[in-house]
Amino acid sequence: MPERTKVALVGIGKIAVDQHVPAIANSPDWELAATVSRHGSVPGVPAFTDFAAFLAERSDVPVVSLALPPVPRFAYAEAALRAGRHVMLEKPPGATLAEVHELHALAKANGLTLYTTWHSRMAHAVAPARAWLADKAIRRAHITWREDVRKWHPGQDWVFEPGGMGVFDPGINALSILTHILPAPVHLTAATLTFPENRQTPIAAALTFSGNVTADFDWRQTGPQTWDITVETDAGHLALRMGGNVLEIDGQATAGENTIMGEYPALYARMAELVATGQSEVDLAPMTHVADALTLGRRDVTEAFHF
Amino acid sequence: MPERTKVALVGIGKIAVDQHVPAIANSPDWELAATVSRHGSVPGVPAFTDFAAFLAERSDVPVVSLALPPVPRFAYAEAALRAGRHVMLEKPPGATLAEVHELHALAKANGLTLYTTWHSRMAHAVAPARAWLADKAIRRAHITWREDVRKWHPGQDWVFEPGGMGVFDPGINALSILTHILPAPVHLTAATLTFPENRQTPIAAALTFSGNVTADFDWRQTGPQTWDITVETDAGHLALRMGGNVLEIDGQATAGENTIMGEYPALYARMAELVATGQSEVDLAPMTHVADALTLGRRDVTEAFHF
Repeated sequence: MPERTKVALVGIGKIAVDQHVPAIANSPDWELAATVSRHGSVPGVPAFTDFAAFLAERSDVPVVSLALPPVPRFAYAEAALRAGRHVMLEKPPGATLAEVHELHALAKANGLTLYTTWHSRMAHAVAPARAWLADKAIRRAHITWREDVRKWHPGQDWVFEPGGMGVFDPGINALSILTHILPAPVHLTAATLTFPENRQTPIAAALTFSGNVTADFDWRQTGPQTWDITVETDAGHLALRMGGNVLEIDGQATAGENTIMGEYPALYARMAELVATGQSEVDLAPMTHVADALTLGRRDVTEAFHF
Repeated sequence: MPERTKVALVGIGKIAVDQHVPAIANSPDWELAATVSRHGSVPGVPAFTDFAAFLAERSDVPVVSLALPPVPRFAYAEAALRAGRHVMLEKPPGATLAEVHELHALAKANGLTLYTTWHSRMAHAVAPARAWLADKAIRRAHITWREDVRKWHPGQDWVFEPGGMGVFDPGINALSILTHILPAPVHLTAATLTFPENRQTPIAAALTFSGNVTADFDWRQTGPQTWDITVETDAGHLALRMGGNVLEIDGQATAGENTIMGEYPALYARMAELVATGQSEVDLAPMTHVADALTLGRRDVTEAFHF
């Protein structure tokens, strides 16, 4: 087995602990060589609280994975690229599209890898769904992405602050799958965004795209949660359920594994491949659809939301 | 003199009559061979009301210029490209970023020219400003773009409807100049958007970008109108006034002509060059900053606005 590549993980919050750390620990490609976080750390791994100190002291670590929230992430990514490190970005890859364009240009100019990850694309049934749709004519598609924000972001007011994206925080996962499995691109033609009267970001959104593609995002669903994409084609009906983990063709389950535990190992395997081959993967399509929805959407105001 | 190339102008509204028609009429490159518009026409020029009929009957016209509002424009641009015509788009080039990406891909796939025009970039003093800034270090820059919507869009409620862009309709002109003259890209870091309580788009916006770049857009300015960009550098102070038509270096006017009548002739000259050399020019930077502002901006509500 070849020597594993050292990676530093920046931002030791819930997603890092739940997903990034076990994915790295179980990978044949990677060694977690350092963490950078104000408060978090990983047992047995050198912990930095200051990113500049990490960059100065650990030139032996060629790759940085950023699991920070999007708003502060640019400064870390830029510093890492300027220090000659390859960079892997949690989703969404930034707070703005323009900053990711800048990072991409910087990575290119320095011969470094930049990878804008979309973990939901690595869900178990997404690749078979994409393969099945590749030669079909799409008649219509619909996303239903309805979950309970109180369950998934308890007390996290930042999701309703500017840049927090509101219901697009989960909705962008659906869009990352949609843009990956459809054989041709679509564009938004109309949207209705529902803002709680006391909040800065939408709690629900209804989107209409070209090609009879629609999406229904809602963060107010209690009880069973729904993460479904259905596609009608000239040769049958596809349903991708449980956030891309269960595939049904004409109502028959063909692949299914109700867990996201395979997504992050697949992201890290892909990053290893990109670094080894000197490539970047920067796909802004999901984020572009969100920006388009916030640009073109009609704004409705609904009752105040409190956690 | 070589034979002039036939162009069709679609959307015969105010901007077409005021700018496109005289620019084409006075150009050595172009012949206005047809118009397409529900209500408008140009004396002496064959007028179509239906775009499909134009495409079917006038295969002798290789270039189409779309002066329609952004929301309906995509369908025309797509149909034109699918019919093998080169396409020139008024600003902003579409209602969404995703649709312009689709048009660009379609143009590439068919070996056709797509030109996303930004008329303010052709203002008299923009090129000298860009040249002067090219080798300077930028310390800060500020845009002041304040005009009276009642004067420029009297009774045009659509500017406050979804997709109408609000104060970003003029503001994107400022951003098109800024992104053209600065020697390095910037990205939005914060924004405050002011929405009238009865409207869907902002009437004012305060933007903060990386690199000490700020912008102040307001559509409520009566009296003198202001379209200024100031830039402080390591080697002096630049001011670009009157929408890019007047240049001052360290307070001294160096170039100035207070008219936009040169902008559209320059756009058509550029389109001729692009078609002749088989190139496209698709720059979405100004539109990306607007989408980023609407994604990341904090929303304030102000008093109702009525024309």
